[in-house]
Amino acid sequence: MRFIIQRDRLVQSVQDVMKAVTSRTTIPILTGIKMVVTEDGVTLTGSDSDISIESFIPREEAGDELVEIKQTGSIVLQAKFFSEIVKKLPTDTVEIDVQNHFQTVIRSGKSEFNLNGLDAEEYPHLPQIEEQNAFKIRTDLLKVLVRQTVFAVSTSETRPVLTGVNWKVENGELICIATDSHRLALRKAKVDIENDINYNVVIPGKSLNELSKILDDTNDLVDIVITENQVLFKAKHLLFFSRLLEGNYPDTTRLIPSESKTEVTVNTKEFLQSIDRASLLAREGRNNVVKFSTIEEKVIEVSSNTPEIGKVVEELQAQAITGEELKISFSAKYVMDALKAVEGQEIKISFTGAMRPFIIQPLNDDSILQLILPVRTY
Amino acid sequence: MRFIIQRDRLVQSVQDVMKAVTSRTTIPILTGIKMVVTEDGVTLTGSDSDISIESFIPREEAGDELVEIKQTGSIVLQAKFFSEIVKKLPTDTVEIDVQNHFQTVIRSGKSEFNLNGLDAEEYPHLPQIEEQNAFKIRTDLLKVLVRQTVFAVSTSETRPVLTGVNWKVENGELICIATDSHRLALRKAKVDIENDINYNVVIPGKSLNELSKILDDTNDLVDIVITENQVLFKAKHLLFFSRLLEGNYPDTTRLIPSESKTEVTVNTKEFLQSIDRASLLAREGRNNVVKFSTIEEKVIEVSSNTPEIGKVVEELQAQAITGEELKISFSAKYVMDALKAVEGQEIKISFTGAMRPFIIQPLNDDSILQLILPVRTY
Repeated sequence: MRFIIQRDRLVQSVQDVMKAVTSRTTIPILTGIKMVVTEDGVTLTGSDSDISIESFIPREEAGDELVEIKQTGSIVLQAKFFSEIVKKLPTDTVEIDVQNHFQTVIRSGKSEFNLNGLDAEEYPHLPQIEEQNAFKIRTDLLKVLVRQTVFAVSTSETRPVLTGVNWKVENGELICIATDSHRLALRKAKVDIENDINYNVVIPGKSLNELSKILDDTNDLVDIVITENQVLFKAKHLLFFSRLLEGNYPDTTRLIPSESKTEVTVNTKEFLQSIDRASLLAREGRNNVVKFSTIEEKVIEVSSNTPEIGKVVEELQAQAITGEELKISFSAKYVMDALKAVEGQEIKISFTGAMRPFIIQPLNDDSILQLILPVRTY
Repeated sequence: MRFIIQRDRLVQSVQDVMKAVTSRTTIPILTGIKMVVTEDGVTLTGSDSDISIESFIPREEAGDELVEIKQTGSIVLQAKFFSEIVKKLPTDTVEIDVQNHFQTVIRSGKSEFNLNGLDAEEYPHLPQIEEQNAFKIRTDLLKVLVRQTVFAVSTSETRPVLTGVNWKVENGELICIATDSHRLALRKAKVDIENDINYNVVIPGKSLNELSKILDDTNDLVDIVITENQVLFKAKHLLFFSRLLEGNYPDTTRLIPSESKTEVTVNTKEFLQSIDRASLLAREGRNNVVKFSTIEEKVIEVSSNTPEIGKVVEELQAQAITGEELKISFSAKYVMDALKAVEGQEIKISFTGAMRPFIIQPLNDDSILQLILPVRTY
């Protein structure tokens, strides 16, 4: 195997596949990056056996030669060293040359590295996925879907299925739901699907976070293929495989109240900043809980009191308050997470009493819903 | 005590004095910031008893009213909460109002905080320093002096005096020296001193790092007052006190070789990058050691070899090599630290054989000197 490659493209691909590589693995060869050179170009692979990422650098792109292939072949190189080396090479092109016994020479200008490689035949094979029944979604929309839901997954392993995001495809619509049983995030979007197939799977939150980091903010379509225990995201020159979580995701539809007793419309940013300030004194001891009350027509009060430190009272002008008066306590962190995820200048909060979950949604947009359980203090 | 102050100025002063505040203190009141309001303005103080910082906000500056003083007085507020609060307040001005029992109200727009304060009388007094015999140095030069020496202090407490930088003033010249006994950094500069006083003190490295963070890059003069156990840096509206380290600093002049056997002139950045790459494979096991050899006229080789990972060879064009051929091994980290500290496009390295310390200096500039002990491998 021998080829000369544009350094920037190699660096980018190595960074992408590195997202799947971990040093904490029981399979030593997975600490490496696999490189396969064919007449078409170079394919890099990284995997921690949960997530696998494949990045392809074509021989030529838009008339520009990216790789000059001297001899095809394959090798596995230690990811930690290889990624650091390519980042720091002195010239714009890099020559990679595998010699006897997997010895790999990396040349760039007057710099020459000699790395001990491993046999690519020993590298685990990626799952074979039948590519029929893919559905499509725009890359930037996919990133939004992830951002608006994944923060709400559980970080506790007591119910492993809650560490993932439930993806359901029904009637050409994708519904993403995450909950840690104290709050729930839901986001719907139309997807481009040919046949009338339904899906109901749980994708690990970690996988979605890594996927989101790799994808660019383009409006290119991503193909999504779901099988029994794997999901594959196919973007340009990039394959992202993740295993699915086993177990049934709880039915969350019953949790979401269908009617409300108090509705408040408020500026998103002003509300977020008020809660942020009110929570400053609530961080210690009391689990970051703030109080929220409607105090007069169109005025809200957000407050917290930690006797040993002090107290804070924030008054906030609402656009509208309808329904019953309300006093409720909630986790400032959960509400701030939800407000950051919601897009839109104004939000509507729908309460069904101080003891019941409440809903935050952008004004006039039902595609996103953030549900939060109150804390019982009043 | 009651006043209204421009928020940005308050935030800046709080950030400055926070540099001296630590939560790890045995004196509870030192977790607070002291605020004293006089007819002239507001003075904030933070201290960890090693470092004390005082920041003054005048009532008026350049015709602009910064503070509107309603009533003079003083208070101590919990630094952790106070600093977070002022950063997040909603409006450009802040009212601070101390009421009964040190209860302090902080008002900004519709936001109102009530903090439990402490009696400022309980706050330790700062050292009284006679301000005669100050010498002066430009702020930006002072920051350079610190940057070029402080990284070489020892991080080990086995010889506490080596955790500081030795400052000597002799014949109107300031000499700063730091060493951890494996390498030494020295920087000289003319200072503005009236009488013919000499000093020889050791300033904690930590104090100089914090000082450097607070000072702006201006060419205003800083007054420096040295007493038996304290040093005071006086900048505009800012006092920075540090205790001095006890004990005699070792005489380092004998360490610095006065003649050399091999001299190499090389581009600083190219040399730094070569060593950086060569060290990539040397990080594990072998303590980051790289080999350096003169291999032919004007060519240097930097290399490292870690059998289980691989090897690297870097060739580098020197501007000039004079004297004996040389093979030497050294810590890549120490040489990179020194190269980053040295200013100037080209540097001269003066060797006195493979077993003797060598010197790195900018070409044609004797005010800075970096000395490094080699590692014995050849």
